[in-house]
Amino acid sequence: MSITQRQSRQQAESFLNTLSGSYFPQSTREFIRGSEEDIRVPFRRIHLSDTLHQPTPGSIMPSNPPLDVYDTSSVYGEPGVRVDVRNGLEKRRAKWVEKRKQNQEYGPTQLASARRGIITPEMEFVALRENLGREDLPNPVTPEFVRNEIAAGRAIIPVNHNHPESEPMIIGRNFLVKVNANIGNSSVTSSIKEEVEKLVWATRWGADTIMDLSTGRNIHQTREWILRNSPVPVGTVPIYQALERVGGIAEDLDWPTFRQVLEEQAEQGVDYFTIHAGVLHDFISLTANRVTGIVSRGGSIMAKWCMAHQAESFLYLHFRDICALCAKYDISLSLGDGLRPGSIADANDEAQFAELRVLGELTQIAWEYDVQVMIEGPGHVPMHKIKENMDEQLKHCHEAPFYTLGPLTTDIAPGYDHITSGIGAAMIGAFGCAMLCYVTPKEHLGLPNKDDVKEGLIAYKIAAHAADLAKGHPGAQARDDAMSKARFEFRWEDQFNLALDPVTARAYHDETLPQASNKTAQFCSMCGPKFCSMKISHEVRQYSGNRIDIKVLNAATKESDT
Amino acid sequence: MSITQRQSRQQAESFLNTLSGSYFPQSTREFIRGSEEDIRVPFRRIHLSDTLHQPTPGSIMPSNPPLDVYDTSSVYGEPGVRVDVRNGLEKRRAKWVEKRKQNQEYGPTQLASARRGIITPEMEFVALRENLGREDLPNPVTPEFVRNEIAAGRAIIPVNHNHPESEPMIIGRNFLVKVNANIGNSSVTSSIKEEVEKLVWATRWGADTIMDLSTGRNIHQTREWILRNSPVPVGTVPIYQALERVGGIAEDLDWPTFRQVLEEQAEQGVDYFTIHAGVLHDFISLTANRVTGIVSRGGSIMAKWCMAHQAESFLYLHFRDICALCAKYDISLSLGDGLRPGSIADANDEAQFAELRVLGELTQIAWEYDVQVMIEGPGHVPMHKIKENMDEQLKHCHEAPFYTLGPLTTDIAPGYDHITSGIGAAMIGAFGCAMLCYVTPKEHLGLPNKDDVKEGLIAYKIAAHAADLAKGHPGAQARDDAMSKARFEFRWEDQFNLALDPVTARAYHDETLPQASNKTAQFCSMCGPKFCSMKISHEVRQYSGNRIDIKVLNAATKESDT
Repeated sequence: MSITQRQSRQQAESFLNTLSGSYFPQSTREFIRGSEEDIRVPFRRIHLSDTLHQPTPGSIMPSNPPLDVYDTSSVYGEPGVRVDVRNGLEKRRAKWVEKRKQNQEYGPTQLASARRGIITPEMEFVALRENLGREDLPNPVTPEFVRNEIAAGRAIIPVNHNHPESEPMIIGRNFLVKVNANIGNSSVTSSIKEEVEKLVWATRWGADTIMDLSTGRNIHQTREWILRNSPVPVGTVPIYQALERVGGIAEDLDWPTFRQVLEEQAEQGVDYFTIHAGVLHDFISLTANRVTGIVSRGGSIMAKWCMAHQAESFLYLHFRDICALCAKYDISLSLGDGLRPGSIADANDEAQFAELRVLGELTQIAWEYDVQVMIEGPGHVPMHKIKENMDEQLKHCHEAPFYTLGPLTTDIAPGYDHITSGIGAAMIGAFGCAMLCYVTPKEHLGLPNKDDVKEGLIAYKIAAHAADLAKGHPGAQARDDAMSKARFEFRWEDQFNLALDPVTARAYHDETLPQASNKTAQFCSMCGPKFCSMKISHEVRQYSGNRIDIKVLNAATKESDT
Repeated sequence: MSITQRQSRQQAESFLNTLSGSYFPQSTREFIRGSEEDIRVPFRRIHLSDTLHQPTPGSIMPSNPPLDVYDTSSVYGEPGVRVDVRNGLEKRRAKWVEKRKQNQEYGPTQLASARRGIITPEMEFVALRENLGREDLPNPVTPEFVRNEIAAGRAIIPVNHNHPESEPMIIGRNFLVKVNANIGNSSVTSSIKEEVEKLVWATRWGADTIMDLSTGRNIHQTREWILRNSPVPVGTVPIYQALERVGGIAEDLDWPTFRQVLEEQAEQGVDYFTIHAGVLHDFISLTANRVTGIVSRGGSIMAKWCMAHQAESFLYLHFRDICALCAKYDISLSLGDGLRPGSIADANDEAQFAELRVLGELTQIAWEYDVQVMIEGPGHVPMHKIKENMDEQLKHCHEAPFYTLGPLTTDIAPGYDHITSGIGAAMIGAFGCAMLCYVTPKEHLGLPNKDDVKEGLIAYKIAAHAADLAKGHPGAQARDDAMSKARFEFRWEDQFNLALDPVTARAYHDETLPQASNKTAQFCSMCGPKFCSMKISHEVRQYSGNRIDIKVLNAATKESDT
């Protein structure tokens, strides 16, 4: 190894080591074993402390069961595991891929298998993974349920055969709501090292998939590093690289160039492609009177091409070729909404819905090829127009999973668009959207840095979880309940450890009450020791208990009186 | 003036001067004149730059009209005005109060006047204020509409006669959604200087009312400073001071002590009182099996009192006395939800709704006394249970305005509860909630500092505005449209200036593209110069224009063909 290589490796390792700090104290990595030894579903177990204050004198000190949470960080979340980013992650899924290739009856894709009644290891894996926290509840997620949802087109497992480093996950409205994080460099800033770091960072804070939206130089190399080190599915927008290849001149794009890019990315292992095949030539003029025209990059590139050639989109015309290619690798299609609204003013207009109906047609074509499909959605939508988006998508796209960016519920708060869009994301998630594409505080302003990625992810994990609660997901409320009980019992450390972001929760608490003794204090800084409402309401239980006893006694006496 | 006094004054002035920086560049303070000279409604006018890029060569450079926005910062937002915090603000409303006292037919309160068909200067003021941005639209807000809403109990103008420094504002679901910010010291931390600074800071970022929730020493003095310097209505929870007065022992509270506190606060000028008169003795046991019991401080104090005395709440028993006192000063009642849920698990339970029904009864009693009323609401509610809160409140409380804390839509993100609750706040605002009590990132963890107050307010201004849009408020979308147009035309400075927080928007942009030249660049850092979708879609307009011409031509030709 040369000195330069050594330095480079040390550098690469050192940034990963910065990620392995104790972000999640009192957490351990555990696994659920499936029917085969190599089906091992990782999750994080948060260990809780005992209830300190006895409900009644002399009673046994109650312990609190640990809480198990879904975890996307894979080996990066395993203590002691060192990842050599130059070699990439272990190819844990390689055997399953091999088995599929050798076994003709599986068919090329998860959808093909599902339709043939075959439960793949990936399906079993996601069933166990989704089931976390609801094993003891009625209606657990079974592998058969997963298979059926995939067969119906209501859910997808994005898994390129050439990305065996990934851990299977499922996107569909009858499962936990998922979150995607966009990373990727642009020609203006960013570096490869930063991108891999962002990937690891994103999975630490809960990204279920990531999209590599690189537009600058070294697209291919960046993606290779990301894929080889990514435990989550990776999506791309291939038109970006195709445009790069023709020197940034949209008019110079053509099908052979695009196809070449698709093949290269497919070969590398990209799990899902965003394809803006619904931007038809005739829809372009529908956007002419919009306040913000076409804001999707892919959409505007294709619009420009159609205008220059006065011809129909080559993506639309070659859609069957695209499907054939995707089927070969089991790449899922994420049908892009190139005409999504870019402002409150443009929400739910004819351009948007005209494209949506075409995406519905394309969905059925993809299904002919056993290709898994999801549909991308807006964007910028005021609250009262969000449900219509979900309703129209379900109706026209035959219940294929919906995957939306936000939507932002107002345009007036640049710098806070993780919040303007978190509101819309939570709502559309509750209405049935299967995956939420995060928005960072830098949206509309600049490229997100590490802090922004985290801020965006936390906001979206909140939105996704709020949606899971609203949908009545049986296991979702367990974490809320554990937190609420810890809060009621003044178990401060448990409150921090149960939080989506223990680091920040602890730091905020310590800002006001830094002493260690306050971590077990029966009060907080909001009210101080005298006023604590939680403390008072503990006394209610005893009082109510007594009163109920008295009532029972009174009732008994009265009965013997009559 | 002594040296100490001088130093103290200098200190007080210096912290206010730190607030008068250019937070809102290109903004001017303007006024709308009403029917009388002393009805002067302040607002902020954001001046916009011209559209730089001509739609067609040779056309006139289009200018963009300024945008007028609602502004609660009063003199603190007027350039060049120096406030001597020791003397307090000018008592601009004093003449109106005098007129009311001299004119028997007005009645004691805004509600009394409204019922008698009288349009007060306060009503005219709020009509002009609410009307901002919709003067040219159909259905402007008229003073008569305001009067009618108040008469019906659907809206309130909280204005204590003894707080003539305040600028009238209205709370009701047929008006703009309002935001309250809680400030106030506790026994653990904070100082008077900090509290006045927080007040000014809160109004700068859009607080419509503030609540002084001080629980520590110097409650009276803190409140005096706040009231004399507050241009917005000030609310309190008088039970906190009453408890302080009896040494923190809830059992030692009694009606004479409480009444004394009410009178003192009324005399000082508090505009609305939170009174937890709906926590009845019999409801306490309904909370015994909750996960988080009673989390409202006022609620738990009263529960403790009821338990200790095995008696009915003195607030409930003396409610008519409270009303009589409030009527004298025109203090509005904010009927507290002492049994609001403190966790997702406890949302919408019988304890909560039993209390809500009592608040409905109390509303009608208050109205007998011409006292204005609003109703406080939760708390912690998952998304799918939010609408029921609004529906039940409207039904049982006779359409009195609803004023909710959040609600938080999940418990799992301490450190981010401005977001967990911003989601719920936006939703309940859209359903008809009139005022949203902000939640800061420090909720459940510590006391908010200046940054937290700002974070909380921005999140809640987003929620309130998203709700205004969803409710179809005619003027609301003007700001979104101005922002979107500026975005589409690459007017970066205008985007910053139109933002809720121009400072942050600009800082985020400059982080990636610091050069001044990039403020007029036709691209942003997200895509870089080659890829910009906005730029491409500008070309669509010209193309569509041409195509439409061709179509018209073709159509004309065809017609002559046939």
